[in-house]
Amino acid sequence: MEKTIQAIRFLGLDMINKANSGHPGIVLGAAGTIYELYTKFLNATPEDPEWFNRDRFFLAAGHGSALLYSTLHLAGYDIKIDDIKKFRLLNSITPGHPEYRHTPGVDSTTGPLGQGIAMAVGNALAESYLAATFNKTNFKIIDHYVYALCGDGDLQEGITLEAMAIAGRFKLGKLIVLFDSNDIQLDGPVSLANGDDIKQKVESMNWEYDIVEKPNDLETLNKAIEKARNSDKPSFIEVKSIIGYGSSNAGTSKTHGSPIGKEETTRMRKEFEYNYDEFEVPLEAYDEFKESFAKRGNHHYVKWNDQFTDYQKLYPEDAIQLKNIISGEIAIDFDLITPQVEATNEATRATIGKLIKDLSVHSKAMIGGSADLTASTKVKGINGDFDVDNRIGRNINFGVREHAMAGIINGMTLHNLKAFSGGFFIFSDYMKPAIRISALMNIPSIFIFTHDSVAVGEDGPTHEPIEQLAMYRAMPNINVIRPANANEVRHAFRYALSSKTTPNIIVLTRQNVPTTYKLDYETFSKGAFVVYDNHDFEAIILSTGSEVSLAIEVAKKLKEEKNILLRVVSFPSWELFEKQDKKYKELILPKGTRTVSVEMGSPLGWHRYADEVYAINEFGRSGNGDEVQDFFGFSVNKLFNYFLNK
Amino acid sequence: MEKTIQAIRFLGLDMINKANSGHPGIVLGAAGTIYELYTKFLNATPEDPEWFNRDRFFLAAGHGSALLYSTLHLAGYDIKIDDIKKFRLLNSITPGHPEYRHTPGVDSTTGPLGQGIAMAVGNALAESYLAATFNKTNFKIIDHYVYALCGDGDLQEGITLEAMAIAGRFKLGKLIVLFDSNDIQLDGPVSLANGDDIKQKVESMNWEYDIVEKPNDLETLNKAIEKARNSDKPSFIEVKSIIGYGSSNAGTSKTHGSPIGKEETTRMRKEFEYNYDEFEVPLEAYDEFKESFAKRGNHHYVKWNDQFTDYQKLYPEDAIQLKNIISGEIAIDFDLITPQVEATNEATRATIGKLIKDLSVHSKAMIGGSADLTASTKVKGINGDFDVDNRIGRNINFGVREHAMAGIINGMTLHNLKAFSGGFFIFSDYMKPAIRISALMNIPSIFIFTHDSVAVGEDGPTHEPIEQLAMYRAMPNINVIRPANANEVRHAFRYALSSKTTPNIIVLTRQNVPTTYKLDYETFSKGAFVVYDNHDFEAIILSTGSEVSLAIEVAKKLKEEKNILLRVVSFPSWELFEKQDKKYKELILPKGTRTVSVEMGSPLGWHRYADEVYAINEFGRSGNGDEVQDFFGFSVNKLFNYFLNK
Repeated sequence: MEKTIQAIRFLGLDMINKANSGHPGIVLGAAGTIYELYTKFLNATPEDPEWFNRDRFFLAAGHGSALLYSTLHLAGYDIKIDDIKKFRLLNSITPGHPEYRHTPGVDSTTGPLGQGIAMAVGNALAESYLAATFNKTNFKIIDHYVYALCGDGDLQEGITLEAMAIAGRFKLGKLIVLFDSNDIQLDGPVSLANGDDIKQKVESMNWEYDIVEKPNDLETLNKAIEKARNSDKPSFIEVKSIIGYGSSNAGTSKTHGSPIGKEETTRMRKEFEYNYDEFEVPLEAYDEFKESFAKRGNHHYVKWNDQFTDYQKLYPEDAIQLKNIISGEIAIDFDLITPQVEATNEATRATIGKLIKDLSVHSKAMIGGSADLTASTKVKGINGDFDVDNRIGRNINFGVREHAMAGIINGMTLHNLKAFSGGFFIFSDYMKPAIRISALMNIPSIFIFTHDSVAVGEDGPTHEPIEQLAMYRAMPNINVIRPANANEVRHAFRYALSSKTTPNIIVLTRQNVPTTYKLDYETFSKGAFVVYDNHDFEAIILSTGSEVSLAIEVAKKLKEEKNILLRVVSFPSWELFEKQDKKYKELILPKGTRTVSVEMGSPLGWHRYADEVYAINEFGRSGNGDEVQDFFGFSVNKLFNYFLNK
Repeated sequence: MEKTIQAIRFLGLDMINKANSGHPGIVLGAAGTIYELYTKFLNATPEDPEWFNRDRFFLAAGHGSALLYSTLHLAGYDIKIDDIKKFRLLNSITPGHPEYRHTPGVDSTTGPLGQGIAMAVGNALAESYLAATFNKTNFKIIDHYVYALCGDGDLQEGITLEAMAIAGRFKLGKLIVLFDSNDIQLDGPVSLANGDDIKQKVESMNWEYDIVEKPNDLETLNKAIEKARNSDKPSFIEVKSIIGYGSSNAGTSKTHGSPIGKEETTRMRKEFEYNYDEFEVPLEAYDEFKESFAKRGNHHYVKWNDQFTDYQKLYPEDAIQLKNIISGEIAIDFDLITPQVEATNEATRATIGKLIKDLSVHSKAMIGGSADLTASTKVKGINGDFDVDNRIGRNINFGVREHAMAGIINGMTLHNLKAFSGGFFIFSDYMKPAIRISALMNIPSIFIFTHDSVAVGEDGPTHEPIEQLAMYRAMPNINVIRPANANEVRHAFRYALSSKTTPNIIVLTRQNVPTTYKLDYETFSKGAFVVYDNHDFEAIILSTGSEVSLAIEVAKKLKEEKNILLRVVSFPSWELFEKQDKKYKELILPKGTRTVSVEMGSPLGWHRYADEVYAINEFGRSGNGDEVQDFFGFSVNKLFNYFLNK
């Protein structure tokens, strides 16, 4: 056992030394903790790293990647010694911080502190919901733990505190957080910046708190984990440790983020009587993982597969739903369930509210909620509130905790649910770090935002998005979709629900917008399309969201009154449009034609498509919504005059 | 007294009814609380709403704007009944949420929850620092309290919890938070989303906790505030209240965000025997505020002015520093203190570290720190760590709490300090909501970021900014400055320190960059300028930060080896460039010349200036910094070939 822990430590040190970059402190300090977790408790298998009912492990302290890669290597995941040697090298499977869908056995991308805990909370919530929804007497098809390992930094992040409050409120008993408590952070002793009584704080949020006082005391740790597994509350185990344990600078921040160096590592090998070369692993270490981790994991994996075979026979309908979830399919006949409408006039937030209701009946993958705004956003899951006594409730009351909401959505999406959040678009600011992680992980989280422009009106500039569309358009691997009306919302939501490797942001209005056209899903999926046209048009308006109907109205008036002929393009998603071929692009936006973008937001980025950018380059105003829009030039008259005079 | 409280309530209701928009719940529930605070405790004066030593009041629950405007009106601030009647109307001084520098007596912009508490913490920290720095025996020139009023939503936000931990750690005893505890939030009972033991939680963060159990029990509240004022810890007073008190829907979320309506308001007038018309205010209410609030405030104000006159005589040097702070001037001879350098090769993060040290000696306004990253960012205040026993320490250890850091910087800037934060640029994501508030408030907060591109290398995509430049360029009223070398950093920091109504973001490298040219401050302040030129250049490279030296190197090589002639423009700030006249713009970027932007970040926005955008439109990679840059095309050879082949 001791030799195996040393193998984790020295493999970690060796890879950091070779990369000349990395974080040895946590490798040395927490090797015993991760060893205990993987060899004694964690149910998972390298045979099928994405096994649906595996225990999850979130390395919230993502800078401990070397610790994780060492462990996964010993555990038999497809990470060879050669991969270990390529730690932090370009195009290796062992990057600086763990990346989901990049390295087998890595359950999430982490590094930015706080995200790991929030995702773990979301994953445990998903487990609880799925278990209640699909388990039957004698069929515990969903039944696993969610573990996380975090450091002091994680616990200082607001998102962690938000997420922990949620986990405590909903008694997510399968969640177990191991806190690697070494009293040191990057700039020195934790006490420089923190005076919290951590036990008291954790307990105030309705968590079970336990402590392992002595570093490397695995016997006590084992008991604490065992106890935590039997608690009906989420559990927090403070595991005292020594950062950089065994090195000359042990217990100081010097060991946090700089390589120990080969010389010192050689000295440590001697001191620990660890007689193995660089990157050499004692066979006993592999054997021990085989005998413990692999054996246990495979046993459970085989048993689960057998059980699931029987489950499919006995509960065919549930099995279909569950298999869809496992495969990420959304098997809904959208055209049938949510047919397009004609001539409605409703806020697109109202539309999404109805769609969620109608579609959720057909897919048990759909779960979500808002950050204390369901009454305003209409983004509300069905079957009542998820709660201790209603685990099948699909509406989650996140409280005013936007950031944790986004992290939890990611954690649920990592469990293959079609999880969606609701919020005012302005508060997407609070969620940015977590939304970025979803894009980085290539997972299809769904973020729905309402109150999408200065049309919000009375609430004023603190509540009126200006730069938010641009900021998300700048982010790689995410679709920003701003549908123009009820029919476009249908397709936008369908697109989001059908996505497998890209998160989607859907941006909706507070105010009513008219629906004046139908369009098929394929057209919508092209990201931009003509919604009003004239032969020999002299200019094209590119518009999104509520401004599309305004643009059409103006174009009609210009034709009627001044014989000025325009084309109007609804442009709900730049990202989808960019996927189209040149031919399609030029069909919509013929070269040499004057183009004018019309959008109530920052001009930033529009110059790519438009010769003239009709936008808002300042903060919003408090006032009546229509008056505020007019103030910024977004009224029929003002826009009409713009085209007349230009 | 009761009549005065009713005046606050009904004035609030009337303005919300007239606007047909607003939040009556908190007006009715918390009128007694704000009454008690303003009439019995708060030291401030309408004579000089910006008086430097006034007590501050942060309405963290910014949706209670009607409550604040009513109170300020009664208190004699320049908010007339006519202004009250224009509540939430376009261009009124009574917008939907309180706006700093827009309405007299409003100490900060609030609305997005959590921001108010963080700013209050920053303000109290500033008070503590300023008092220790400038007070003398018998001269308590800086000596005031910082009050905040918050609701349940605020306490759920991560930024609040981060900020409270900081306030507790540093024992900011002058900070008093009044928690309007009505057990209701927008979507219903708080218990839907929260199960925290708030007393335990608050105490775990080293705060004094007290509770006023009975709603509207001002006697107990008075004692609690008095006790809080004498505590050496920050104090948190939970004031139980009834949301929508007195209305038919009292105690329910129905009263939170929708007008009560005239009919119900009339009924309430009768029930409360409040025999005054709509917008009519009993003279006794004005009188009471005059006798209490105005009398006390003016007394202290006059006394302070007298004292300050004496202070200036006795301590002329301190007085000069303090007057500079009060006026927001940064009276430093930059050219003398931080002369330009020649031919250095250092990371721009290293440059800023030195500048902070050198300049801080000359200005006591300068204070700041990093979010547990001073060792990496080099952004560290002088005079040691700010702490309980070193209140003059100007380095603040924020811990891994980026969001609260930004809010605290805002709070200190609201106290006229030249406050600066340090962090990795990627973590600016966490700070976005607070940075936005600084821009909205027109205050010159300084946000310094390092590790500004994929050149970060080994730490990988979770730590490599891509879209961050674009997201801040999209934000109104903020300067994003990415200097190219040590001399540009000098000017960038000078610009930030000299700003009065605009926050500045300074974006710096982790890696070394050569300094190959000097330039004067005026040139730099134009935002874009030529740093390498040729007669008859055929194309212009627009570049920022570390890519400028790369661009110059490539341009030289192209000339030498291929006789291709280029101009290179360093373009540190779009916002500053946009302030220039057309003539200057065309001098730098002559029309009709081919332009190519070269920046290691999202292409978004560059099409405004560049025909070709050489950028990175995906997430970064983990690997050696140079290799990663080369991978994305940012090496001399790759860029050379680009110009050769295009």
